[in-house]
Amino acid sequence: MNILAFGEVMMRLMPPDYKLLSQSDSLNFLYTGTGVNILSGLYKMGNTVYLATSLPSNNVGYAAAANLRKLGINDNYILYKNQHIGIYFLEMGIGDRPSRVTYMNRKDSSFANSNIEDYEIEKMLEGKSCIHLCGISLAINENIRNLVYTLAKKAKEKNIKVIFDCNFRESLWKEEEKIKAKEEYEKILKLSDIVFAGEKDGELLLGIEAPEELKGNDKTKFILNSMRKLYGIEIMVGTKRRNDGKKQFLQGYLLDNEDFILSKEYELTIYDRVGAGDGFAAGAIHGILNGFDKKEAIEFATCSGVLAHTTYGDSPVLGVEDIKRFMNNKHVDLIR
Amino acid sequence: MNILAFGEVMMRLMPPDYKLLSQSDSLNFLYTGTGVNILSGLYKMGNTVYLATSLPSNNVGYAAAANLRKLGINDNYILYKNQHIGIYFLEMGIGDRPSRVTYMNRKDSSFANSNIEDYEIEKMLEGKSCIHLCGISLAINENIRNLVYTLAKKAKEKNIKVIFDCNFRESLWKEEEKIKAKEEYEKILKLSDIVFAGEKDGELLLGIEAPEELKGNDKTKFILNSMRKLYGIEIMVGTKRRNDGKKQFLQGYLLDNEDFILSKEYELTIYDRVGAGDGFAAGAIHGILNGFDKKEAIEFATCSGVLAHTTYGDSPVLGVEDIKRFMNNKHVDLIR
Amino acid sequence: MNILAFGEVMMRLMPPDYKLLSQSDSLNFLYTGTGVNILSGLYKMGNTVYLATSLPSNNVGYAAAANLRKLGINDNYILYKNQHIGIYFLEMGIGDRPSRVTYMNRKDSSFANSNIEDYEIEKMLEGKSCIHLCGISLAINENIRNLVYTLAKKAKEKNIKVIFDCNFRESLWKEEEKIKAKEEYEKILKLSDIVFAGEKDGELLLGIEAPEELKGNDKTKFILNSMRKLYGIEIMVGTKRRNDGKKQFLQGYLLDNEDFILSKEYELTIYDRVGAGDGFAAGAIHGILNGFDKKEAIEFATCSGVLAHTTYGDSPVLGVEDIKRFMNNKHVDLIR
Amino acid sequence: MNILAFGEVMMRLMPPDYKLLSQSDSLNFLYTGTGVNILSGLYKMGNTVYLATSLPSNNVGYAAAANLRKLGINDNYILYKNQHIGIYFLEMGIGDRPSRVTYMNRKDSSFANSNIEDYEIEKMLEGKSCIHLCGISLAINENIRNLVYTLAKKAKEKNIKVIFDCNFRESLWKEEEKIKAKEEYEKILKLSDIVFAGEKDGELLLGIEAPEELKGNDKTKFILNSMRKLYGIEIMVGTKRRNDGKKQFLQGYLLDNEDFILSKEYELTIYDRVGAGDGFAAGAIHGILNGFDKKEAIEFATCSGVLAHTTYGDSPVLGVEDIKRFMNNKHVDLIR
Amino acid sequence: MNILAFGEVMMRLMPPDYKLLSQSDSLNFLYTGTGVNILSGLYKMGNTVYLATSLPSNNVGYAAAANLRKLGINDNYILYKNQHIGIYFLEMGIGDRPSRVTYMNRKDSSFANSNIEDYEIEKMLEGKSCIHLCGISLAINENIRNLVYTLAKKAKEKNIKVIFDCNFRESLWKEEEKIKAKEEYEKILKLSDIVFAGEKDGELLLGIEAPEELKGNDKTKFILNSMRKLYGIEIMVGTKRRNDGKKQFLQGYLLDNEDFILSKEYELTIYDRVGAGDGFAAGAIHGILNGFDKKEAIEFATCSGVLAHTTYGDSPVLGVEDIKRFMNNKHVDLIR
Amino acid sequence: MNILAFGEVMMRLMPPDYKLLSQSDSLNFLYTGTGVNILSGLYKMGNTVYLATSLPSNNVGYAAAANLRKLGINDNYILYKNQHIGIYFLEMGIGDRPSRVTYMNRKDSSFANSNIEDYEIEKMLEGKSCIHLCGISLAINENIRNLVYTLAKKAKEKNIKVIFDCNFRESLWKEEEKIKAKEEYEKILKLSDIVFAGEKDGELLLGIEAPEELKGNDKTKFILNSMRKLYGIEIMVGTKRRNDGKKQFLQGYLLDNEDFILSKEYELTIYDRVGAGDGFAAGAIHGILNGFDKKEAIEFATCSGVLAHTTYGDSPVLGVEDIKRFMNNKHVDLIR
Repeated sequence: MNILAFGEVMMRLMPPDYKLLSQSDSLNFLYTGTGVNILSGLYKMGNTVYLATSLPSNNVGYAAAANLRKLGINDNYILYKNQHIGIYFLEMGIGDRPSRVTYMNRKDSSFANSNIEDYEIEKMLEGKSCIHLCGISLAINENIRNLVYTLAKKAKEKNIKVIFDCNFRESLWKEEEKIKAKEEYEKILKLSDIVFAGEKDGELLLGIEAPEELKGNDKTKFILNSMRKLYGIEIMVGTKRRNDGKKQFLQGYLLDNEDFILSKEYELTIYDRVGAGDGFAAGAIHGILNGFDKKEAIEFATCSGVLAHTTYGDSPVLGVEDIKRFMNNKHVDLIR
Repeated sequence: MNILAFGEVMMRLMPPDYKLLSQSDSLNFLYTGTGVNILSGLYKMGNTVYLATSLPSNNVGYAAAANLRKLGINDNYILYKNQHIGIYFLEMGIGDRPSRVTYMNRKDSSFANSNIEDYEIEKMLEGKSCIHLCGISLAINENIRNLVYTLAKKAKEKNIKVIFDCNFRESLWKEEEKIKAKEEYEKILKLSDIVFAGEKDGELLLGIEAPEELKGNDKTKFILNSMRKLYGIEIMVGTKRRNDGKKQFLQGYLLDNEDFILSKEYELTIYDRVGAGDGFAAGAIHGILNGFDKKEAIEFATCSGVLAHTTYGDSPVLGVEDIKRFMNNKHVDLIR
Repeated sequence: MNILAFGEVMMRLMPPDYKLLSQSDSLNFLYTGTGVNILSGLYKMGNTVYLATSLPSNNVGYAAAANLRKLGINDNYILYKNQHIGIYFLEMGIGDRPSRVTYMNRKDSSFANSNIEDYEIEKMLEGKSCIHLCGISLAINENIRNLVYTLAKKAKEKNIKVIFDCNFRESLWKEEEKIKAKEEYEKILKLSDIVFAGEKDGELLLGIEAPEELKGNDKTKFILNSMRKLYGIEIMVGTKRRNDGKKQFLQGYLLDNEDFILSKEYELTIYDRVGAGDGFAAGAIHGILNGFDKKEAIEFATCSGVLAHTTYGDSPVLGVEDIKRFMNNKHVDLIR
Repeated sequence: MNILAFGEVMMRLMPPDYKLLSQSDSLNFLYTGTGVNILSGLYKMGNTVYLATSLPSNNVGYAAAANLRKLGINDNYILYKNQHIGIYFLEMGIGDRPSRVTYMNRKDSSFANSNIEDYEIEKMLEGKSCIHLCGISLAINENIRNLVYTLAKKAKEKNIKVIFDCNFRESLWKEEEKIKAKEEYEKILKLSDIVFAGEKDGELLLGIEAPEELKGNDKTKFILNSMRKLYGIEIMVGTKRRNDGKKQFLQGYLLDNEDFILSKEYELTIYDRVGAGDGFAAGAIHGILNGFDKKEAIEFATCSGVLAHTTYGDSPVLGVEDIKRFMNNKHVDLIR
Repeated sequence: MNILAFGEVMMRLMPPDYKLLSQSDSLNFLYTGTGVNILSGLYKMGNTVYLATSLPSNNVGYAAAANLRKLGINDNYILYKNQHIGIYFLEMGIGDRPSRVTYMNRKDSSFANSNIEDYEIEKMLEGKSCIHLCGISLAINENIRNLVYTLAKKAKEKNIKVIFDCNFRESLWKEEEKIKAKEEYEKILKLSDIVFAGEKDGELLLGIEAPEELKGNDKTKFILNSMRKLYGIEIMVGTKRRNDGKKQFLQGYLLDNEDFILSKEYELTIYDRVGAGDGFAAGAIHGILNGFDKKEAIEFATCSGVLAHTTYGDSPVLGVEDIKRFMNNKHVDLIR
Repeated sequence: MNILAFGEVMMRLMPPDYKLLSQSDSLNFLYTGTGVNILSGLYKMGNTVYLATSLPSNNVGYAAAANLRKLGINDNYILYKNQHIGIYFLEMGIGDRPSRVTYMNRKDSSFANSNIEDYEIEKMLEGKSCIHLCGISLAINENIRNLVYTLAKKAKEKNIKVIFDCNFRESLWKEEEKIKAKEEYEKILKLSDIVFAGEKDGELLLGIEAPEELKGNDKTKFILNSMRKLYGIEIMVGTKRRNDGKKQFLQGYLLDNEDFILSKEYELTIYDRVGAGDGFAAGAIHGILNGFDKKEAIEFATCSGVLAHTTYGDSPVLGVEDIKRFMNNKHVDLIR
């Protein structure tokens, strides 16, 4: 499969050994972003993947592209212009101490300042099976919102599947633009074939209300199904996190016009929390696009998400064989 | 609050990656000590903190001071004389393998060789709300015992609260001086307002016996209350550790002339064990000095102690917001 | 005790911080092998230990010898010839992600190409209490099989105890040589006094079948006892691993002509999985050779194995005092 | 001496081992800035130093302050507001490959967005002997220019010496603001007592022209003297760099109404190039303020600058004793 | 330009900080090879580059490919088969201590065991301007020699320029195959357009003798010109190293049917010696293919080689702008 | 040759990357001492080497022994008693900034507190060709002086060569003991066969005066010859350092009853300065004991010393082949 994603690339800087920033004088770094992460996972699963984005035209930007190539991402559609990249500092937590992300300079990045005419959209879409877009892009500015919308529309016209990850984070929206959020999301949802969403996207963002008597999975199903019908979406997928004292659990679901299917619930071992959701998404996209049956697709996706908590970095890096071994539930300590 | 502590500064040297000394050729280092750790925590909670101590007058000592300043500790009352600093090697354990501390050269340190006339005691006490003293200092030598006693007495005269952490470690006392330990402790306890102590301090050190029928918390309460009355202490605080197979738990208590209050018992995730008790102490001092109600104070202190197990180094580095978030019991994985 | 082992030395290369090879640009390395690991453990338990092997005559081989000496292993019987050493890459797993070993160049190593006449066998055996041999050597080639057989025979003649670790790994045998495996093992087993083996060695390799109605430990006992009688072995030892969701357990057993003794079952904390079995073996050999009673020997061996999961590297590095403290079951966090 | 500086704090991120950004996955970091560097040097020389600046009110900003305290800088006048800090990446060069600096996000920093009313100017100036201001601040924006001007004026009124480092870097000025640069500089120069400047500041920025027949030091003297007289400056100082094949040299000069004094010319060994000029400046300020005779002051300053090329980081960290030992020209390899 | 190289990929493992293998427990690693290095340089100079090779079909091989992509090399023509990769250990020298390379397992690598039918040669050559081949491949085995010959012949037929780097290293040839070396080289030289060679290749390998009276550059010119005429080569290029006490120098030359042109001689600063010759070669190929005039081409190539001594790793990583800045001889310390 | 040395083992702790202690939070460490270093060099040159010393009986001491074994030193004569080890911090200099050593706790080490009856002297001397003693031991205390004297006397009686390195460092002698220094040195010198000494040892320590008209090497020769005759020494060796601007040079000399031989003078490249003198000494001892002719011996020794400046750590780690290659003056960049 040839898959294109459009989205921001950020630099992640993390002190080693669970230290706080004030305890360290070195940082491990990598390049990340929803698009980056999903493509990284899809590459390891055997797909051909392309990222469209804009990076600064300096050594920071060139190093970003080099690292994306290392992850298996084709860099033909990357622009180099402007001087900045979004940066985030991650102070990794452990036990009862949460991980903490501090963002720097996201609104002023090369990506945020790129324009529709910078991109060769026709060329980017040529020969692709699907395009991945992300709600985080909608929060950035009018410019990027236009770009996302144009890409979705053009893809739709060309029969390229549109995959949209709602990923609504209220804090990323400027106060004065928040009122537009619903409208902007709806424009994209109407063009989307496969949508990643949770209850809260339906409730908080789109104002969908479930009857009060519905609880738990019934409520989730109701809200997602409402979204599906409202916007004409083919497949909706997502995960639920649950915690019980010191234990944490993950469960995936998939909904289409016939079924609402839940995966098994898995207890998590968390080594690197950030980006684990993108491990789920990569698994789901891979399963759906490659014709896994629905039950298998959601189980595969969830296992991919579970394992993404155990690998360094935001970007999933395990292949189909590793995920299926875990999914088929043979406990293995050591492979040699 | 302006808080002064008096105590030894040590250098901690630790091989990385849970290695033993014989498996490594590098060491991570930091500067620590009961006083250092308590002040570090109190600084992060918003107080102004000062350490009185003596460091070697060479680059090892100057680096120590630089690191104390980094922790937020004011270095105006630090002396530089002599050539040595106490050093300890920490081989960090994991699972069923305990952490191991090997001390070097503690009796010959700059601190152990500092004298009462080296310090400008009047200046040090000026404008302080309280002074923190520690039982470990009593074990060092006659010299330091005199210093501790003088500081406690002068503070008392000036209406500065005296906080004393019993911290009785038999192994630190020279055999021939051990007989003096009880007497020396009693001199300080009589001058103290707030005392950190456990059952064993009462029993082993001070010879207080509880009626045989008293068990568990009843026994703890009896012993602490006896101490309180015997020495005219205002508030007594401390923690209990419990382990159950692979799980470990921490619970704090606070006793005054009205109440014996227990915090919730928390299961621990241990990343860096050493100094975690000082995290509790910093929380307790902050709560008590800043007028938290007693129940809140002991819960806050215990949460501070629990979280101190999850941060690198001996010195607590989390602020009030982080501790209160955990105390209010909303599980959070990731803050962004 | 003077103990000789004969076996391959490998170089282990591991990316730090649970990273995959493709995520790192540095590797931690050490030298390992069944013989190396067992001797390392036995040295720490107070024995005098010697390795007979062949290393490349270049800086890689000399560095290997230097590291063996650091582990306490006498290098007097090490040859330096040829140019290569077996290398394996370890990508350390965590949680549900297994550790992965990738072997390089094992068949072409200096060791695999060493010949019987390269070694001064008489000198090597002089003054030794026992010799340790390993089934992995049998898989390498005809050459090494001859060497192992000669060593076992000569040792037997000199009343030196022969210890043999079955360690049958089908994947290490070339397809065309696999048919010889049983025969080759039987030649050594008949010369062995103490044998490390599990059910699978008896069943898969030697074709021993237990009556169907025997299950669990009864089956294990039957198979091992059959082996013992068939080959005239004095003592048989081994471990069982069990996993239950995210928890893993280890239990040791010892069988001789009188008893089948099981140790307690211990829940594991796994920090470094590879080589932990050799920690058990070192403990068992130490206990048996030094006259521990059988119950104590197998408990000690199992505790040594449990703790070997908590130390960095393949080679066990804890002494008798550390193992006995854990065995006597006093939970300790911190030793100072 | 009590010395205040006002200026931006930046974060410097550098790959280890002379690697390019694209060759590394870790970065060493520290906090820097002209003001930071000068104060760091002055602290090591025995002065009491304060920085007035604005840092982001998040863990990046708090870590910055912690690191400034470690350098000996008093953080009482530091504001915490906004979210960003200026960042620069340093790819360290060697031999014929120059070091390369890539700036990120400087115009949007907490400092650039701080306003005159955020600072308690009266309090900041209280009890100070001098204030250090820097031409780089003038390039940032109108806001910061006002702040610099206000500080200089208030200091002048209070008889606090104004030290100004021209540090004109054309590339930092927005095209449309460049026309103002001369005027802005002149406003500050007229209020300054001690000025760091070179020929180029006089020529390019201020339009001073030397008679064509003047060459080398004569020309330098002419231009600096013109500046001195034009703006009523007491003392002007600066350095000249010269390179000859692979060798590089540094020479300092000092000019007042009586003399133009040159230091010896020193061949440089360059380990960490960035910030070495600030090592010179710290030395010059220390010498002048502490009443060194002029010849000694400029020699001391130049030696401080030479040695600043040999220490890690932008901030000078050597004391008077180290600088004087070098100045007195006894070659020493090793001090013990 | 679209450029294809065919050659071995090796893994380089190096202890940090100029340590010997026996002094370290960690290694920095990267992937290298003549083809890899030349393509890395050509990519940075703006060309599109492809490597044809065979890597092991395991995580070591996949990590190799990831790192090649990071260098900008297209991995479409890389095979994954077999299990081994050539490894070399580099103990970096300094001053009078030479760097030392220890090879492991080169003859048994995936590449050495790849066959002509494994490669899709037609597809590999499609659309390429030139192909790069290397004498080191000729030393490996008959198999690889056939592959090199076939590639050269097919390229010639398709009018694709053949670039051949003699790179004769006697020690790489098996004793019994050495007699074939001349013949094998001649087969390739006759098909080559651009050849990298030095005097020794002509003399030792091909038996060309210069008249005794010719010395220095005259002798070089004579030998190269003889080669040029003998094999019908278009352009010959190479470098000479000279050392004078502690100083080392590099000078490049280019010879065609009209001219023998020498670059300036440059004094070297050596940070990472291995692969610096490939920096020269990449520069030469870039200059020649992109139509630089001959004088400029050889100066550019030599400057590229000089700078390749200053960057980490075997693979050149500087672009045209960096090389031209140095070539135009403006000394620059710091770019910002 | 079987060689025994007696002397202190110290731990060296060094911040990485030329940082000062206050700039780092990690330290590289190793174990060193004059005896350790000389034996390390002699082992690499092919001798069998033993150290007699006392180490703390804790993990710091055991790790020291493990590291000595790694260097090739036999640990059979090492005692484990007491708790401390001498530690020194090394802040590595570069260019005009000298390296700085800060000692900790040397007088209270396990070694300093070991007594004559702790050592099995007869056993230690059995089968040895020579014993190495060092003037630094004489400075420690009466105890150790007795030990050195006893060892020298017993060795003399058994016809074991006594090698003594004067190594007089005034700062190591307590003020009140300094008056004894001459007498103590003389006691050992009279028992010594081979002595390492310089002009200053003769002048400052022993009060030997050369006629005023003697300069340079004539003066050196006079003083050393006086020592030789006065104390009945067979061979005297030593080095001279010279510096000329940024360049530094080393030259060795050897004097016996026939000749005063000077080696060539070598320009140094200094990577790790400390211990380089011991590289010279190891080379000299090896040459003399193994019957090199005198000219070759002193050239070999000097080359060993020159190269010891280029290797990490205090202990020389190069073998005869490496030293002879350099001595035979073929410049080599890279060995493969």
